[in-house]
Amino acid sequence: MQTVAIVGVGLIGGSFALALKKAGFKGQLLGVSSAPSIQAARQIGAIDEQVDLPQAAARADLIYLSQPIGRIIDTLRHLNAHLKPGALVTDAGSTKAAIVAQAAKSITKCQFLGGHPMAGKEKRGAAEADPDLFAGRTYILTPRIPSELDTDQAQEFRDWLRKIGAKPFVLEPGEHDRIVSYTSHLAQLVSTALGATVAEHVADDELAISGPGLQDTTRLALSSYDLWRDIIATNAGPIDRALSDCIQKLDYLRQSLKTRQLQEEFERAAWLAGKVRGV
Amino acid sequence: MQTVAIVGVGLIGGSFALALKKAGFKGQLLGVSSAPSIQAARQIGAIDEQVDLPQAAARADLIYLSQPIGRIIDTLRHLNAHLKPGALVTDAGSTKAAIVAQAAKSITKCQFLGGHPMAGKEKRGAAEADPDLFAGRTYILTPRIPSELDTDQAQEFRDWLRKIGAKPFVLEPGEHDRIVSYTSHLAQLVSTALGATVAEHVADDELAISGPGLQDTTRLALSSYDLWRDIIATNAGPIDRALSDCIQKLDYLRQSLKTRQLQEEFERAAWLAGKVRGV
Repeated sequence: MQTVAIVGVGLIGGSFALALKKAGFKGQLLGVSSAPSIQAARQIGAIDEQVDLPQAAARADLIYLSQPIGRIIDTLRHLNAHLKPGALVTDAGSTKAAIVAQAAKSITKCQFLGGHPMAGKEKRGAAEADPDLFAGRTYILTPRIPSELDTDQAQEFRDWLRKIGAKPFVLEPGEHDRIVSYTSHLAQLVSTALGATVAEHVADDELAISGPGLQDTTRLALSSYDLWRDIIATNAGPIDRALSDCIQKLDYLRQSLKTRQLQEEFERAAWLAGKVRGV
Repeated sequence: MQTVAIVGVGLIGGSFALALKKAGFKGQLLGVSSAPSIQAARQIGAIDEQVDLPQAAARADLIYLSQPIGRIIDTLRHLNAHLKPGALVTDAGSTKAAIVAQAAKSITKCQFLGGHPMAGKEKRGAAEADPDLFAGRTYILTPRIPSELDTDQAQEFRDWLRKIGAKPFVLEPGEHDRIVSYTSHLAQLVSTALGATVAEHVADDELAISGPGLQDTTRLALSSYDLWRDIIATNAGPIDRALSDCIQKLDYLRQSLKTRQLQEEFERAAWLAGKVRGV
């Protein structure tokens, strides 16, 4: 892997480039992005050269698509003509079934392997990029069939993921989307629902009557809808089911106020909260 | 105010004692609590002397009840006989209507003024006490009628609250309970519902497929039911209504996936999340 092209040089793409450099990558880092993003990425030393998409496809051994989901799907539609055999196209989109399906249709000249790093920040943009963003974090890979992981280019990509400190985790694309509908998308929508409910029922000057718990629980509610439009559009079915399950749970808590059942739900939730903290 | 008695020397009571000392209080600090709590409080220099409840009532100018809600109500039933005129009894319970109603019945020999500091930590106990726990935090006072704030002892207590960095905020007890049912109790139950839902639908080894967002949103779910039993028992009506409102909101989000309405809810929630951060 001599040349890597980052398509969409924002927080994730910029961090991946910095992480590669920190882990010893000595090749060329090409960037396909808007002028301000490329400028920010150059300032932090993430990108060596700005190119357009056909050039990136023609030159890179690894093409890393770190755009919003809708843009990734669009890029996949236009990328194939320029790709070189033996290259690997991967992506960092937060839903996988729609992207993997598009890649199966559009990418024929080299291999595609979908990915999803479980890492992020509230703040976006290459200026926020961090070479340690992936360190200690799960990095999901979603082959359509397991043998896709055995090609030389897939093996080399996984080696680099380990070198940047990420923990590769293999999942079927649909199973990935089902799991993140609970662990990520439901958490977002619950935080949004809480924030919107409080906004509607508590007057502005009464919001001083709140503690750090409301801040934690509404941190995700700060997220921009821009990011979520595509996630929801490409994972509406699983998200609908996760929301239904959570609504049912809240209704059960409501009916169980003051009973033993509520204690059981507190214990179940505390177990989960400890588990996701690695306790 | 020469002598202060802390009844229930845990995180809040211990922190209040340390905060008073840091703010220049030179009088006696009496503690009414279990032996291990008193020992922990002595080790951090929060308490000068262990006494029993009748002694505390007979000697203190300020009696600060920082027990769980059910225990506060119980203490109020037994405190009156020993109190000295001119003293002030206050509490730090997280719901106010039930406590203020009990005090109105039971405390006749001196003044009672309900309170609720909007401060806390996940960890409990006097060993976790922090002289700066109240600094910058809202401290609610809930007189039944506004003139209760004008007595000498109430004025002096408010002066000390300001000296420890807290921001006094006056609310009618029922209004307090309505507001915290959204800003605190709903946040807790939403966090619990999220944690319990994820626990039921995602396998243990798949929980690696989660990011910092799920950690933030389930931090409150770590809370012990012990603390919440009394809160829910003394505020079930408002909590029931807040839960209904949030369930309705989640259902609306579910019906609005992929529409403009969802964007509006994201913006409303982001506004709230910024507001509670003082943005």
